[in-house]
Amino acid sequence: MIVVLKHDPNRAQLDSLKAWLQEKGITIHESIGHSNTILGLVGDTSKLDIDLIAALDIVEAVKRVQEPYKNANRKFHPEDTVIDLGCTTIGGDELTIMAGPCSVETEEQVVAIAKAVKASGATMLRGGAFKPRTSPYSFQGLGERGLEILKVARQETGLPIVTELMDLSQLPLFKDVDVIQIGARNMQNFDLLKAVGHQDRPVMIKRGMSATYEEWLMSAEYVMSGGNENVILCERGIRTFESYTRNTLDLAAIPVMQRLTHLPIIIDPSHATGKSWLVEPLAMGAVATGCAGLQIEVHNDPAHALCDGPQSLRPEDFDPLAKKLLALHAAMKGLEG
Amino acid sequence: MIVVLKHDPNRAQLDSLKAWLQEKGITIHESIGHSNTILGLVGDTSKLDIDLIAALDIVEAVKRVQEPYKNANRKFHPEDTVIDLGCTTIGGDELTIMAGPCSVETEEQVVAIAKAVKASGATMLRGGAFKPRTSPYSFQGLGERGLEILKVARQETGLPIVTELMDLSQLPLFKDVDVIQIGARNMQNFDLLKAVGHQDRPVMIKRGMSATYEEWLMSAEYVMSGGNENVILCERGIRTFESYTRNTLDLAAIPVMQRLTHLPIIIDPSHATGKSWLVEPLAMGAVATGCAGLQIEVHNDPAHALCDGPQSLRPEDFDPLAKKLLALHAAMKGLEG
Amino acid sequence: MIVVLKHDPNRAQLDSLKAWLQEKGITIHESIGHSNTILGLVGDTSKLDIDLIAALDIVEAVKRVQEPYKNANRKFHPEDTVIDLGCTTIGGDELTIMAGPCSVETEEQVVAIAKAVKASGATMLRGGAFKPRTSPYSFQGLGERGLEILKVARQETGLPIVTELMDLSQLPLFKDVDVIQIGARNMQNFDLLKAVGHQDRPVMIKRGMSATYEEWLMSAEYVMSGGNENVILCERGIRTFESYTRNTLDLAAIPVMQRLTHLPIIIDPSHATGKSWLVEPLAMGAVATGCAGLQIEVHNDPAHALCDGPQSLRPEDFDPLAKKLLALHAAMKGLEG
Amino acid sequence: MIVVLKHDPNRAQLDSLKAWLQEKGITIHESIGHSNTILGLVGDTSKLDIDLIAALDIVEAVKRVQEPYKNANRKFHPEDTVIDLGCTTIGGDELTIMAGPCSVETEEQVVAIAKAVKASGATMLRGGAFKPRTSPYSFQGLGERGLEILKVARQETGLPIVTELMDLSQLPLFKDVDVIQIGARNMQNFDLLKAVGHQDRPVMIKRGMSATYEEWLMSAEYVMSGGNENVILCERGIRTFESYTRNTLDLAAIPVMQRLTHLPIIIDPSHATGKSWLVEPLAMGAVATGCAGLQIEVHNDPAHALCDGPQSLRPEDFDPLAKKLLALHAAMKGLEG
Repeated sequence: MIVVLKHDPNRAQLDSLKAWLQEKGITIHESIGHSNTILGLVGDTSKLDIDLIAALDIVEAVKRVQEPYKNANRKFHPEDTVIDLGCTTIGGDELTIMAGPCSVETEEQVVAIAKAVKASGATMLRGGAFKPRTSPYSFQGLGERGLEILKVARQETGLPIVTELMDLSQLPLFKDVDVIQIGARNMQNFDLLKAVGHQDRPVMIKRGMSATYEEWLMSAEYVMSGGNENVILCERGIRTFESYTRNTLDLAAIPVMQRLTHLPIIIDPSHATGKSWLVEPLAMGAVATGCAGLQIEVHNDPAHALCDGPQSLRPEDFDPLAKKLLALHAAMKGLEG
Repeated sequence: MIVVLKHDPNRAQLDSLKAWLQEKGITIHESIGHSNTILGLVGDTSKLDIDLIAALDIVEAVKRVQEPYKNANRKFHPEDTVIDLGCTTIGGDELTIMAGPCSVETEEQVVAIAKAVKASGATMLRGGAFKPRTSPYSFQGLGERGLEILKVARQETGLPIVTELMDLSQLPLFKDVDVIQIGARNMQNFDLLKAVGHQDRPVMIKRGMSATYEEWLMSAEYVMSGGNENVILCERGIRTFESYTRNTLDLAAIPVMQRLTHLPIIIDPSHATGKSWLVEPLAMGAVATGCAGLQIEVHNDPAHALCDGPQSLRPEDFDPLAKKLLALHAAMKGLEG
Repeated sequence: MIVVLKHDPNRAQLDSLKAWLQEKGITIHESIGHSNTILGLVGDTSKLDIDLIAALDIVEAVKRVQEPYKNANRKFHPEDTVIDLGCTTIGGDELTIMAGPCSVETEEQVVAIAKAVKASGATMLRGGAFKPRTSPYSFQGLGERGLEILKVARQETGLPIVTELMDLSQLPLFKDVDVIQIGARNMQNFDLLKAVGHQDRPVMIKRGMSATYEEWLMSAEYVMSGGNENVILCERGIRTFESYTRNTLDLAAIPVMQRLTHLPIIIDPSHATGKSWLVEPLAMGAVATGCAGLQIEVHNDPAHALCDGPQSLRPEDFDPLAKKLLALHAAMKGLEG
Repeated sequence: MIVVLKHDPNRAQLDSLKAWLQEKGITIHESIGHSNTILGLVGDTSKLDIDLIAALDIVEAVKRVQEPYKNANRKFHPEDTVIDLGCTTIGGDELTIMAGPCSVETEEQVVAIAKAVKASGATMLRGGAFKPRTSPYSFQGLGERGLEILKVARQETGLPIVTELMDLSQLPLFKDVDVIQIGARNMQNFDLLKAVGHQDRPVMIKRGMSATYEEWLMSAEYVMSGGNENVILCERGIRTFESYTRNTLDLAAIPVMQRLTHLPIIIDPSHATGKSWLVEPLAMGAVATGCAGLQIEVHNDPAHALCDGPQSLRPEDFDPLAKKLLALHAAMKGLEG
């Protein structure tokens, strides 16, 4: 970490800063220039609060040289993380396609969709039992009963399931879930992150609506620092001034995450755009950009979906899309060769 | 709610939409124009998902006419909410000043600050026992012991305390807290909002970093729909492209909230800017704009603060500031007269 | 246009609004409901200022039903615009690849790059003679001499040239340019837009850093309303809170523009990201999402580029990239079939 | 400027970078650490392109230590700039109040408003003759005739006039204008900035909708580097995700600009919010935060304004507001004392 001091800093404050740094086990290299003095900090700076130092009166600027995340950092773990779910993997050669309804409604609905999306090429079933809803008056999901329905659909199709955990009190119910999803609104629910870091299911962390890449990786770090190395990242759009789409899908997240971390990255074009006609072009774009997989909403009757239906495709729309995605994924390998 | 249909909509889809609306108890007024048909929806549209309808193939646009929040809506509750804490009120004639350290460290520290800020004119003591920290390696707060220290300081000074609840599992510890704070990162932690809606302590909800006014009010609505009417809103800056300040403080939130809701609004210039030299001018601006109060960080040794210290004032800086804020608040009353 | 009035509007103000609308040739359909009155405006509402009406005391909300752009609107021009440059087209079957240096420096440099990129598959040469630079102390481009160099390179290679016009006083120099580029910072330089609308060269409009889709299309409308139908749109990233990349590339702009307008859309991954290692994955993503073409910076000595060099590829990096892009474009056609 | 190199940088590239820096007259201090090498650059780094260096393969990060602006920098010009318009000053002890219609329509209108706002305490008349309008179909202003009307109103009242210049071809008409306004959309129209830097009228630069503080100051630097030191900054809201208000007014710009520059800062609450009922609270907030003045729209018949009327106050609303603003400004001096 580099600390640039202001011209002619208050000596007492500087000594106080240096003492505080040394208490934390940091070695300081001071280099005095014409107009500025620079402190080079050596040691484990991941535990230093950059904002704290930057805000001191005597400090002009602070710049991290090392990233504040370690377990999630590709520099220390050069090999890609591949998560093995038995029948399928995430982050390996295969394109992961998580498909299913936004919200679990009935067993008939979920089993029918699960069978359809499996036949089309999906590798996982997604569906919400606990639903984060902006309004207290909206349908909040079936809860425990929804999880049971998902498990029935898994038994019928063999598809592993991914579903959202909203509060740590629900964690005991998620023992048997294949991948635990942490929603965008909970990306910085730190108690929840710690809790899923202490259990053994893989965890998929959706990027918060206004989370930076670094904050997102720090949330992964929370889970990994608890001992759970099986973390998946999911980009689902960030909030910008453009309101035509629900959010702005940031596909640069794919190559950036591939450089910064060894964790697999999944793209969710359904939530990102909020419009079903945008799912296909952006899903294709995501595959060509190099994502590990996609999360796509599929619903058997969009007009009656209890939530988020409008961004859902029907199984008959999903089928040609899944085939195109898989064909593009195969073609990309040829182009790399 | 107004639904503008596309030109010549698919008849079956339109019938399906109308049936679905009628199932929900909505009356539909259809008015057919030259190029567009418009559906006027009458009834309790607060439970309808606007995104769902907007995303249908046959729909051009949807516009809410009524706000989706009721308990928080000034239209239905014209009188200002005034929260009575015994020795002080929030939302009434008095200017609320919540002052104290970001993070509770020791009893000596907190008691000393509490005494100092009380002498300067603060009406409440703020301090964090449970700390939401971006990094798992940062100090996470003293937890239960921190709450004990705050209560000691309250006993010594008589100042009511406001402190952050991070997870509903901690709720039993907060029984005796005067105001429960919900942090910006938890603004859409809906299980937490429901939980604090079912207990009797006042709740202060910080605006999420990228939350719209409506989403913020919907979070208040979650708490109020559980039966707890004592909700306070706190603006603490939103995330924009400008990175010179930590966030962009949105003072328009003051008059906007005063129009949309009857709940009091507090401004936090310390977190919003991340720079202690910006606290005074923006706190003055907030008072002149008409806020119900301020939340200001005060620390007795900024250079050694365990967290967020740099944006903290020292007690000797806070004293003239508090006096200026109170004098301005008094002057504003003269100007209104 | 739909105007939703507040409950029980001031009668005099309502009459004044109605008279003003009628003066403008608008027919008003008034429909009075329980709690709100709605005005349906019929006629040429493209000339009405939505903000003006929305801000009236008696108005609750205003919603456009028709888009405010006409010439650029796909509804009125269903066929794709294909711009014919003689040796190549933009918006047709071919993938447009505009390649070349950010800034024109010497004839040797530009001719060498032009030959290289042509051999790799580029269809146009890009290069800046007039450079918009944030700092007055930065290199401002070679100006007229730069345009001459570009023309030499065109003569040597046959590649049409695209280059930026910064001020209407420079327009006479651009007579012989194949495509005139309007930079992001000038997207709402309305006098410039009018000027290029009155000449006969095709115009490529870069999206402003914080321009909405509608504003961008209104800028196209400025050009087209002057009589120049040959407009190209170029997405180059929008400004968000994420600062790891220079801007956030919004690939959803591709399918959205294809729905809203008949004009071709080009993607510039070089400026959007500011990092040369992000150009390939995002260029591939853009092709798979369906863009009409790409604008890519290529420089023969990035370390010595006078401006924007770091986001430039070298010709030897561009060659395999161009081949991959063309192969992907061909593969996409197979997938569509 | 500090350049942090990646671990074990390519030697040839490093030499090339160093040679390029030395060519530019920069002295390099190299300090080699455990895991990173740091280059400290000494000399006139204001002409170096930080993005260019940051994007090099061998560079981890670059941090400016000196600001890239000089003429606008308070470090080199500690005294406040006070602009003397004869009858009034901007940036001195007096509160500047620029009031008037958004758009000049008729002589009667403008003269009547000018008389009214002068009587209420305004110090300058504002009004638009050339209007930047998003739509080519909207009223574009009276142009030269509008300037004539403004001058008549000046003659009748003695109020100096401030009005927007949109294109450098209009500059000869602005010889006699008291303050030339550069609109937000032209904040980075560099040819226009250069042109107004070479004439002798004071220039007020509105902040671009998504301009950072540094970019805004660099635009001031463009004008000042041409020799014109009389520059005024005007904050008029930035674009964020919040769409309830037209823009988000950033009052932190006041103290930040006061620290970074010696130029006066004016606040425009009318354009920032787009709602006339928000003008008063935010104008009061701006005065208490310490602005040098305000720009406020006043119109004698908002319902019939040709443009931007809805955010305009009527003279009878402006009168008590102006008096409150002046009283608050006087009270603030008392509080400082």
